[in-house]
Amino acid sequence: MDLPAQLSSLLPAGAVLTGDDMSAYLQDWWGRQTGSALFVTLPKTTEDVAAIVRACANAGHAIVPQGGRTGLTGAGVPGAGDRPPVILSLSRMRSIRKIDAINGSIDVDAGCVLSDVQSAAIAADRLFPVSLGAEGSCQIGGIISTNAGGTNVLRYGTTRENVLGLEVVLPDGMIWNGMKALRKDNSGYALRHMFIGAEGTLGIVTGAVLKLHSLPKAHATAWVGVSDRELALRLLNRLQSCCGERLTTFELMNAEQLASVIAHRPVVASPADAAWHLLIELADMSAPEFLSEMLLAALGAAMNAGEILDAVIAQNGIQRDNFWALRHGTADANRNVGHLLPADISVPVSAVPQFLNTASAAVRNRFPGAQIVVVSHMGDGNVHFGVRFSHRDWSSHDDPGGTEVAVRTIMNDCADALGGSFTAEHGIGRKLADELRTRSDEAGYQSMQRLKKVFDPHGTMNPGCVLREHDQLS
Amino acid sequence: MDLPAQLSSLLPAGAVLTGDDMSAYLQDWWGRQTGSALFVTLPKTTEDVAAIVRACANAGHAIVPQGGRTGLTGAGVPGAGDRPPVILSLSRMRSIRKIDAINGSIDVDAGCVLSDVQSAAIAADRLFPVSLGAEGSCQIGGIISTNAGGTNVLRYGTTRENVLGLEVVLPDGMIWNGMKALRKDNSGYALRHMFIGAEGTLGIVTGAVLKLHSLPKAHATAWVGVSDRELALRLLNRLQSCCGERLTTFELMNAEQLASVIAHRPVVASPADAAWHLLIELADMSAPEFLSEMLLAALGAAMNAGEILDAVIAQNGIQRDNFWALRHGTADANRNVGHLLPADISVPVSAVPQFLNTASAAVRNRFPGAQIVVVSHMGDGNVHFGVRFSHRDWSSHDDPGGTEVAVRTIMNDCADALGGSFTAEHGIGRKLADELRTRSDEAGYQSMQRLKKVFDPHGTMNPGCVLREHDQLS
Repeated sequence: MDLPAQLSSLLPAGAVLTGDDMSAYLQDWWGRQTGSALFVTLPKTTEDVAAIVRACANAGHAIVPQGGRTGLTGAGVPGAGDRPPVILSLSRMRSIRKIDAINGSIDVDAGCVLSDVQSAAIAADRLFPVSLGAEGSCQIGGIISTNAGGTNVLRYGTTRENVLGLEVVLPDGMIWNGMKALRKDNSGYALRHMFIGAEGTLGIVTGAVLKLHSLPKAHATAWVGVSDRELALRLLNRLQSCCGERLTTFELMNAEQLASVIAHRPVVASPADAAWHLLIELADMSAPEFLSEMLLAALGAAMNAGEILDAVIAQNGIQRDNFWALRHGTADANRNVGHLLPADISVPVSAVPQFLNTASAAVRNRFPGAQIVVVSHMGDGNVHFGVRFSHRDWSSHDDPGGTEVAVRTIMNDCADALGGSFTAEHGIGRKLADELRTRSDEAGYQSMQRLKKVFDPHGTMNPGCVLREHDQLS
Repeated sequence: MDLPAQLSSLLPAGAVLTGDDMSAYLQDWWGRQTGSALFVTLPKTTEDVAAIVRACANAGHAIVPQGGRTGLTGAGVPGAGDRPPVILSLSRMRSIRKIDAINGSIDVDAGCVLSDVQSAAIAADRLFPVSLGAEGSCQIGGIISTNAGGTNVLRYGTTRENVLGLEVVLPDGMIWNGMKALRKDNSGYALRHMFIGAEGTLGIVTGAVLKLHSLPKAHATAWVGVSDRELALRLLNRLQSCCGERLTTFELMNAEQLASVIAHRPVVASPADAAWHLLIELADMSAPEFLSEMLLAALGAAMNAGEILDAVIAQNGIQRDNFWALRHGTADANRNVGHLLPADISVPVSAVPQFLNTASAAVRNRFPGAQIVVVSHMGDGNVHFGVRFSHRDWSSHDDPGGTEVAVRTIMNDCADALGGSFTAEHGIGRKLADELRTRSDEAGYQSMQRLKKVFDPHGTMNPGCVLREHDQLS
């Protein structure tokens, strides 16, 4: 009996897909990466996952663990050139196992969709703060394995800071039960942090205990126009000093980015006319009037100091939603308006203006016809710097591969020079494995190789992801 | 030339101590653990550390990295029965390398004393939030290697959550430069989290980039008496709902603990008369009146609901300091008043009352003459549950070792039954290595062994710490 048939007999009905039934599992959301697979498995329990992992290990097959396929570096779908692997999709594991509002914790299966977890938290009067454009599709195992960021990192940290415990199937099929719901636990090495952000290369996350926070009941939201990124930084500093942790959102975009969102989805008008735009939000437990007054006072002082050009404070929930629609509309717009070469840079927050200046100058110099599209989680020092070509320009382009490399090199050199990172929140995947090799500190890269080798000695867990395939066993 | 002489010729003057000059480095603060060493080294730079590590590796000597010797599980001083190791004290490496207030980061040497870093942050109008009784002596490398907790974890997390980057000398003498000052960086495996909390067993932390926060300008502090721990939990929930992240402190102690603090240091009177006492603090950026009103309103509502017996809000800085002196006085009192068998348990916050009930009943049953002394970072689910014998009782005790084990077993069984940890913030050290072996999930312990083996194949980094010596190479 071949392996798919063996596994079919072992697992619940419909747990093994082959042939054309696999097609949905072979392509990422972005539509740029398609690969092939031996077959697809759809386990329902952690024990199912362990059984599949053991069977594949015996047969010498590689495994690609898969969440909602919304990742942006190709970690969740097979690469085109790889030995075809087995895809292990967590999408049928979507139970919320337990919620403890007093402890501020929720135990979930890895296949739970992020927005379902957010809703379950709200129903218990709590907040699960990780929030991003793909939240209606991405899965908990995926955001953990990528250490996803999003728009609430400024106050609540990345996914990493919101994971208390994990359950992981290791490459040899053993199950590690680290489902502790504790705020403090110093019992040995911090294993969960090895698996968070490891993109399924050291094991498969099957369950997690997530941290919940008090649910803010009041929000004050503003759209602010500024003439210059230096002034945006001054405003950030001002708001942090007077509002502290109430400041949950400080998102920057340039006028070109805003225009393309509006062009793609022309229901919302631009709230301000400026070269740079900020979406700012404060959140607190109560007293929305107090919060609006606080924001108004801070923005008034900034206006008097000549830091900002214009500011609109949302007067109601609809206006707030409209502001957010402009921010959340960037991903869709950037997928559809022209051909965008994206970057996901981080630098120290204090260096964001300098990064924008040097990167823009370098791009304009090299590609005068391209448009620069910036959307930035500025409060985290994270800049999505896009270089956009019209579809016509791109299709007539001589050397698209070379242009991609050239743009990436400009970005990453500018970030490096400021002590930054070439991948702030999207991870490495297959796409940036070469870049990781090139830009890593030698002792750091060797340490990563050691980690991979000792946990996955046969290199069968998501091979080619994070570390290049030939670096994994050397 | 022998190794101390070799190293003396290589390193700055006074960098190698032998004989009686070593005595201060051989004993921990608690005074219960004393060991022996071949010699002590006092490097001034990261390169010095690397040179010492390489020389010891060549000679096959083990190394015990040492901070302020304030740890409570014996990780920073040699054990009595070990092969004598070389002690590597970071105490001469105490430069603050850089501070970036806008980015909210500070780069420091590992030997910096915690209170010096706190002061440097305040001078830049920022907060480094890790705060604990030993802050005037403990060093940054020590709090990182233990993942220290303290009294601000409720709002700001443990040390782990406040480390952005690390510099580490690996067991082979290579220097890993991970001194990134970034809020987001997903470039490969999270190496820094391996070293945080690893107690110097995977490498020696020589530098760190720490996270700074907005400096609160207003505080409201209360001392509250409650009749029962269940009611304390209800009050915690109430305060989190209405005050959110403003709640920075929620510390519980029993009347016996408070009495011993006052007995040991009789300058401060008890602010309330109750079986259980809470120190509660709110912090915010501004408007102290508003904050006091908020606390007063919440405590008033709690009083009306019958949750609390008595509450005193500090009217000025002196009163606030007095409340804190009672809390910070627990460590000194517990070291001096009778013979205390301490425990450092964590459970889900919601399970703290149940833990206190079952552990107290079990101790009373087994040791009717002993006194129960509780001080708890209740907001983090962390309970320091002490069982105290009078000096007279203890010195006439038949089997002190057996009693220690019996008390520890009671504590840890009660914690285990509630999904807890036997070491919340003090770590494993040499003292709890057996306990870690016994209470670990099998896949988890094997993973820790793998980590140790791949990073420290010869087992020379702080041997016997975290993992038992014979488990390190198996």
